[in-house]
Amino acid sequence: MTNDRQNTTMDRLTKIVDSIYNQLNEGDIPTMDLPLRSKKNIEFDPRHNVWKYGDMQTNRTCKTVKGAMMMLRTLHMIDFIDGMIGSNRSSTLREMYYISEGWGNGKFNSQDESNLLAEDLEIVSTCMREDFKLRPEEDGARVIGDITIGEVNRKGEKKTINCRDDVGDSGYGIPFNVEKEKVEIKSGNAKFIVAIETGGMFDRLVENGFDEKYGALLVHLKGQPARSTRRFIKRLNEELKLPVTVFTDGDPWSFRIFASVAYGAIKTAHISDYLATPTSQFIGITATDILNYNLPTDRLSEQDIGALKSELTDPRFKDEFWVSEIEAMLNMKKKAEQQALAKYGLDFVTDKYLPDKLTELGIL
Amino acid sequence: MTNDRQNTTMDRLTKIVDSIYNQLNEGDIPTMDLPLRSKKNIEFDPRHNVWKYGDMQTNRTCKTVKGAMMMLRTLHMIDFIDGMIGSNRSSTLREMYYISEGWGNGKFNSQDESNLLAEDLEIVSTCMREDFKLRPEEDGARVIGDITIGEVNRKGEKKTINCRDDVGDSGYGIPFNVEKEKVEIKSGNAKFIVAIETGGMFDRLVENGFDEKYGALLVHLKGQPARSTRRFIKRLNEELKLPVTVFTDGDPWSFRIFASVAYGAIKTAHISDYLATPTSQFIGITATDILNYNLPTDRLSEQDIGALKSELTDPRFKDEFWVSEIEAMLNMKKKAEQQALAKYGLDFVTDKYLPDKLTELGIL
Repeated sequence: MTNDRQNTTMDRLTKIVDSIYNQLNEGDIPTMDLPLRSKKNIEFDPRHNVWKYGDMQTNRTCKTVKGAMMMLRTLHMIDFIDGMIGSNRSSTLREMYYISEGWGNGKFNSQDESNLLAEDLEIVSTCMREDFKLRPEEDGARVIGDITIGEVNRKGEKKTINCRDDVGDSGYGIPFNVEKEKVEIKSGNAKFIVAIETGGMFDRLVENGFDEKYGALLVHLKGQPARSTRRFIKRLNEELKLPVTVFTDGDPWSFRIFASVAYGAIKTAHISDYLATPTSQFIGITATDILNYNLPTDRLSEQDIGALKSELTDPRFKDEFWVSEIEAMLNMKKKAEQQALAKYGLDFVTDKYLPDKLTELGIL
Repeated sequence: MTNDRQNTTMDRLTKIVDSIYNQLNEGDIPTMDLPLRSKKNIEFDPRHNVWKYGDMQTNRTCKTVKGAMMMLRTLHMIDFIDGMIGSNRSSTLREMYYISEGWGNGKFNSQDESNLLAEDLEIVSTCMREDFKLRPEEDGARVIGDITIGEVNRKGEKKTINCRDDVGDSGYGIPFNVEKEKVEIKSGNAKFIVAIETGGMFDRLVENGFDEKYGALLVHLKGQPARSTRRFIKRLNEELKLPVTVFTDGDPWSFRIFASVAYGAIKTAHISDYLATPTSQFIGITATDILNYNLPTDRLSEQDIGALKSELTDPRFKDEFWVSEIEAMLNMKKKAEQQALAKYGLDFVTDKYLPDKLTELGIL
């Protein structure tokens, strides 16, 4: 038994197969068009307010053996996905890579290859990997705060869970699929979201009761956030109208974490309107904070400097705030972690740093 | 308000301070004895059936400036811990490192230094880091299966949670402190534990309903397991008499994951009798499995070969099973991941591989 969404996914995948079949049937060498997936082909989408792929195309053709093999893999993968949807199963990307051992010439040479093909299929079908029942290795992130969700578990039963009252101190774990069919966002008294880069800081805010005192919903990003975490934040923003703030370390990699929450990542630019929350606001450590609070710092490495310079040419960082903070960091040659705020004790972050930043943004 | 356990911790830490004070008071240069913490000083403890530190000692003295600084840091740290216990707070190891910024000459030069000192204090006081209210950055692992626990949350309320019925598909998250005062193990119908290295395989067993079909309690180790995960497994083994099995990849690093669950890790040998479950049995991928199932493999790297050779001299691997499997792996020069079993489809691991291994061990 499949639902509407699954039927749509199967229809769209079938169309891809039909197109290849028809080309072969007419004696043509099959080809498939894909957008070019690199930084030079992402552009601002004013309708959704996120960065998406532009018009530059690349063409996959069976004119070469390599291209023909890739087409064969595409068909095997669609067949595998079709089987999973039909039997209500799912698979990790890694499992699919190993399963391809049984596909003869369709076998993948590396998992990078199979991961990329799964993303290609998303682009061509305009479905999502979650619709294909493919999931990543990483764990879902954790959430603590006063919202109530209904999760349909593996047995098809819907469990109602309040993310403050029905969980332990470790919080509610976001599952890999957070679409409406799996996770219903029921209600909540939380007033805004603080998405936090490190587990240590997430636990600090939990221990200090920051969520209860200010009505915050705390989400642990676990470094570069998983798709399900970004999608969950986006849905909370849309459905409960919760403003989103992102609290990270002060270094170029953390700035990218913010950008991926707010504007989408280059790798997933084809689904930015599903994943990105363009109204997100940055409350992480800036070069200005390092100076103002005299925070403990580390020197920027060569990689850090390169990443900051590259951000100066990244369209996602092309506003006054980011240009000035990135240039200030390049000048001071220093970075700082969010936990460096502990220099002033365990309460400084919740008594002073966050209330100040949130007041400045008009959230408190 | 402090409980008995907290009073004991404070008494023991006070004794350390007293000893330093008394030495100074008598005009002596203060010293502190510590066991030598390296592989050559771990030996088998027949009473607890785990590997622990032996009698080799190292001596910390204030005769050098470096030694005196270390003693100063020790006193600052004890003072900090005392404050946390008194106010029912906790801190990450990283936060403590940053807090030492305010300790003048007692400031740590690196987090390695502060982490090591926290472990030293455990050894000297025979308390645990959790008693000191110090916690690591890493998240707790996830658990799914039919056991019921009572967790005292940050507000001091006890929540009763069944790890199968009251959680989403992501399971129950193990908090950083799982001592009796924090987590009560109430009851459960699970018959044995399968501790699993990777999230992908954990989710596979969850999706396939392996826990329900066989009465298994599934625990995600997340690679090298956190202390709280090992302690939780140990308590389940002791209090509910659940046999423990460990299901990992087939490579030298995964063998060490098993050894740390079963016999303790070198880094934490002073608390092996708290953390290790010596009756744990290995059901991960072996060299024999690679041959028998013709699994997809990767070549051993130089690092892998070095690690395997080092395991041949590690007292934890000195039995027939391990010596023969490690030598076989060195001969075939190949390793395999647990998800490589997907070569035979998504159900092979739960229909064939695990039932065979568990039957062989007499658990099924």
